[in-house]
Amino acid sequence: MTRFSILCLLGLFSTSMLFAQNGVTQCGTPTGQPRFPLNTYQELPDPATPSAEEWATVSTPKASWGSIDYRYAKRMIPTKGLQKVSVLQGWRGERVNAQAVVWTGEDIQNLNLSLTGFKSSKGAVLPADACTAAFMRYVMTDQLNLNGKGGCGNRPDHSLFDSLLVADMIDPDLKSMKLPARTSQPIWVQCWIPQSTTPGMYKGNLLVKDGEKLIASLPLEIKVSSRELPQPSEWAYHLDLWQNPFAVARYYQVPLWSQAHMDAMRPLMKMLADAGQKIITTSIMHKPWNGQTEDYFESMVTWLKRADGTWAFDYTVFDRWVEFMMGVGINKQINCYSMVPWKLSFQYFDQATNSLQFVTTAPGEPAYEEMWMAMLTSFAKHLKEKGWFDICTIAMDERPMEVMQKTLKVIRKADPDFKVSLAGNYHEQIEKDLYDYCIAIGQNFPEDVRIRRAAENKRTTYYTCCSEAHPNTFTFSDPAEAVWISFYSSKKHLDGYLRWAYNSWPLEPLLDSRFRSWAGGDTYLVYPGARSCLRFERLIEGIQAHEKIRILRQEFQEKGNEAGLRKIEKMLVPFNLGDMPEIPAATTVNRAYSILNSF
Amino acid sequence: MTRFSILCLLGLFSTSMLFAQNGVTQCGTPTGQPRFPLNTYQELPDPATPSAEEWATVSTPKASWGSIDYRYAKRMIPTKGLQKVSVLQGWRGERVNAQAVVWTGEDIQNLNLSLTGFKSSKGAVLPADACTAAFMRYVMTDQLNLNGKGGCGNRPDHSLFDSLLVADMIDPDLKSMKLPARTSQPIWVQCWIPQSTTPGMYKGNLLVKDGEKLIASLPLEIKVSSRELPQPSEWAYHLDLWQNPFAVARYYQVPLWSQAHMDAMRPLMKMLADAGQKIITTSIMHKPWNGQTEDYFESMVTWLKRADGTWAFDYTVFDRWVEFMMGVGINKQINCYSMVPWKLSFQYFDQATNSLQFVTTAPGEPAYEEMWMAMLTSFAKHLKEKGWFDICTIAMDERPMEVMQKTLKVIRKADPDFKVSLAGNYHEQIEKDLYDYCIAIGQNFPEDVRIRRAAENKRTTYYTCCSEAHPNTFTFSDPAEAVWISFYSSKKHLDGYLRWAYNSWPLEPLLDSRFRSWAGGDTYLVYPGARSCLRFERLIEGIQAHEKIRILRQEFQEKGNEAGLRKIEKMLVPFNLGDMPEIPAATTVNRAYSILNSF
Repeated sequence: MTRFSILCLLGLFSTSMLFAQNGVTQCGTPTGQPRFPLNTYQELPDPATPSAEEWATVSTPKASWGSIDYRYAKRMIPTKGLQKVSVLQGWRGERVNAQAVVWTGEDIQNLNLSLTGFKSSKGAVLPADACTAAFMRYVMTDQLNLNGKGGCGNRPDHSLFDSLLVADMIDPDLKSMKLPARTSQPIWVQCWIPQSTTPGMYKGNLLVKDGEKLIASLPLEIKVSSRELPQPSEWAYHLDLWQNPFAVARYYQVPLWSQAHMDAMRPLMKMLADAGQKIITTSIMHKPWNGQTEDYFESMVTWLKRADGTWAFDYTVFDRWVEFMMGVGINKQINCYSMVPWKLSFQYFDQATNSLQFVTTAPGEPAYEEMWMAMLTSFAKHLKEKGWFDICTIAMDERPMEVMQKTLKVIRKADPDFKVSLAGNYHEQIEKDLYDYCIAIGQNFPEDVRIRRAAENKRTTYYTCCSEAHPNTFTFSDPAEAVWISFYSSKKHLDGYLRWAYNSWPLEPLLDSRFRSWAGGDTYLVYPGARSCLRFERLIEGIQAHEKIRILRQEFQEKGNEAGLRKIEKMLVPFNLGDMPEIPAATTVNRAYSILNSF
Repeated sequence: MTRFSILCLLGLFSTSMLFAQNGVTQCGTPTGQPRFPLNTYQELPDPATPSAEEWATVSTPKASWGSIDYRYAKRMIPTKGLQKVSVLQGWRGERVNAQAVVWTGEDIQNLNLSLTGFKSSKGAVLPADACTAAFMRYVMTDQLNLNGKGGCGNRPDHSLFDSLLVADMIDPDLKSMKLPARTSQPIWVQCWIPQSTTPGMYKGNLLVKDGEKLIASLPLEIKVSSRELPQPSEWAYHLDLWQNPFAVARYYQVPLWSQAHMDAMRPLMKMLADAGQKIITTSIMHKPWNGQTEDYFESMVTWLKRADGTWAFDYTVFDRWVEFMMGVGINKQINCYSMVPWKLSFQYFDQATNSLQFVTTAPGEPAYEEMWMAMLTSFAKHLKEKGWFDICTIAMDERPMEVMQKTLKVIRKADPDFKVSLAGNYHEQIEKDLYDYCIAIGQNFPEDVRIRRAAENKRTTYYTCCSEAHPNTFTFSDPAEAVWISFYSSKKHLDGYLRWAYNSWPLEPLLDSRFRSWAGGDTYLVYPGARSCLRFERLIEGIQAHEKIRILRQEFQEKGNEAGLRKIEKMLVPFNLGDMPEIPAATTVNRAYSILNSF
């Protein structure tokens, strides 16, 4: 028996490990299928050891509501945020979340979850599928850089950092489980309140059982406001989480851009659409970010240099990806990376030598202008034929000012109407050229610029990445920081938020969120199998809050409700970048929630 | 000073060595120029040491006619084939050759050559440019396999074989030279007798001088027959020496298929046309011979698999190469390699992954048929548009019978009129399918098959390669063997001859004819700078003899000259494959020449 088939039996197999081993029999699953049996994979062993002394106090299984502000450790008795009743508040159309936790001193053979119906005192009911309960799963993570300053830099040796197993993923596919003695198991409960719900207080219970035997019946109350949150497709929030289709193809072992690839991506990207995503991430050249992710971004545009020296471009892949994403409901904007990649080296298929070649050239050089003029002229024509020119942006990452100015010159020369986006620092010199301008969280748009941009219908946002210790969405980050992010965007009167990695999965995203660079979880917010997580759901919470604030501001402005407007601004005052972690994000967020839900 | 600039100064630089070193200053010669100063490069040191005792007998410079059947050693006093007068015989339009040799016991500072005019007793003169004299150059070679059986196999360690410096290349660019004491220097004299020449005996002299000082005046007599050999373009001889344009691009440091590449190839390919070449060698896929040469054959057809799974082909490179060769005068046939390459792995540019991919598939498999049906259907259409379909052959090397049969099936399915060629063994089963059939020298076509094929206007030839110890055209081969080859083709009533390597140059063809495989000189018959050599000129001699025999046979048949026909056949009887080296090729060839020139 090979190492691989043993791993298969253990459930400790790894998609990509197997995928990398050509010719190895692959657990009987045909290629083109996801490589994880959806409900049986085994988490990595927990490096932490349970305390015999503490666990001695626990014998039979227990269950309680906890708090979504905590990650409950696998081998510790939960103590924080426990509550008898969980009370949620939300607008009609809003998603609200609760967390419960089970812990046991003895083995539970068949732990399973169910929800009763939810009824109001007036007899109204929530639809059966409005609320869901699912086990959370543990994934390996690490910690911030040892100096506490963010999570950037390479981490070739994970042993230099904590190895921590954290509850993150929400696994709707695991219907029942065996829970060993001296283990805690968190449970995620979400209610997506239908827009048609009659306002009122709805009550029901989460039933935690061992087989048929009830361990606990945990009461859940949902207070539904009369206010209504639109469908995600109607949200104004400018959410830009960069998608990586190449990671999906690798993980699912499907040929790039095949029907199987599309099928594998569809639920994952639908989940992104439901979070309010506006932008389709496209790569118009080879390795725009120099291959920094486990799966580098390949060009979606075919660059061909003919033997006669002329350029030819083909958009088959680009079109397939864009049309697929539009079909999923992400259709507002197409961002094209990059004319100024991190390594100024441009790959093309060279017909004369029948090989892939590179041109190393920089903006301002004749070779750069020659190739990009050819590309952009062709691209503009193609985009206009497709009717996409007006929603397309030539997207840049931060570069030295003169490089960006030279790049803009080429763009303008190719077509003066090309929209341009930038994720970088604030630069007065080129601000007017940027349709979609996203700056680092620590920077600021001048107030007059922000207002003028809004009047010009331009998109103005901020981003976080590995640089920020707080707020962040690492797998070990304080969960409320994911919510904090959008409150901060509201405070700054920005249109939304950008993060560079929706699903740039490491080798084994289900097992280990660490990567060769950056802090754990930096590279992805969702898991294979289109499974969400604590981080992503709380990010959506924040987006909903941003949207609610936008709706309230608009209403109060229209109605001249100055007191309301002042109350909102006052609510947002405590969102100060430097306050974390001394003032935890949860404190600030929960205080704001109580105000926001009082409108 | 770097190693490279020292080599430059010494003249011991190497194009490809320099070319391989990006960024190294290259002796002041711009890229795109041949990397050898045409008249100054220095040969490798001679591993042989001159005998002081022998050379003690020589003081002042000597010169004499020698024989074209010998290679005169650089550090030995010439003894073989010396003669006071060189008498050549030829038809009008024929090229005839002589060799002289200079040797000296003291340094010659400025050895130079010139020819007087050539006049007949009746006062007729040969044009001044009809005859040329040039120094020969020495190149490193090795020997047959140690068991004496051919020159096949890898030779990673040249020290296991003789290292021998041999006179081979004819260097018209070296106008004068310094000849050190105790050195011999051969001289090649060729007269290309104009077709308009008045028959008769022409006399002139080769003048060998040191500066202005005459060393020797060597009398040369050329007996011009009244018979006429047509221009090479009119020869019927089916000469198939495979060209390697990739070697030229590498050696000359020019971009593949650029104008500079064409300019570099033109004189080289013109020289091939002047030898009677009929066939343009094309590669229609990546590495038809699995990259066995220093410069592998890249596909001249661009294979593109679109993201939607369909195939697309582009013939820009193929057209450029074919049209270039036709412009040079090689325009009778296009051979396309290969549907059955030595490694059944087919490269294509895969749009979905933006990368070069391989399909590993064999004739008879669905994937093979799918890709080749797409290719051949497209190719046939393209060839017909170009008007080349009727002169194009799908070319195979020897494969197992069932593989060839399965391949033929696909070809026939794509277009029943595709011509097919094979270089391999004789196979009765597929003989009728083969338009151009070339078998190994040791094999035989049945007489009835040969006659039927001639009646059907099919091409029927033989080849030699590394397998043959004799006859061959290794750099150490008996020079007359290159002539013998075509007499043998005449004896067998074949249309010509095939050799797989006209110019698959090793790394430093001017300096060292050895390669990582096979015996020295196996991979090329001509040198950079479009310089010919003893082997190539003697090969042309044989081709001329074959052509003369064809003309005589035709004339004798038309005139019913049975005696003449019998005389020719009798002349050819001694060309027996097993007789060499015991009966040297020169003996057989020179006896045949004396008869052939008597007609």
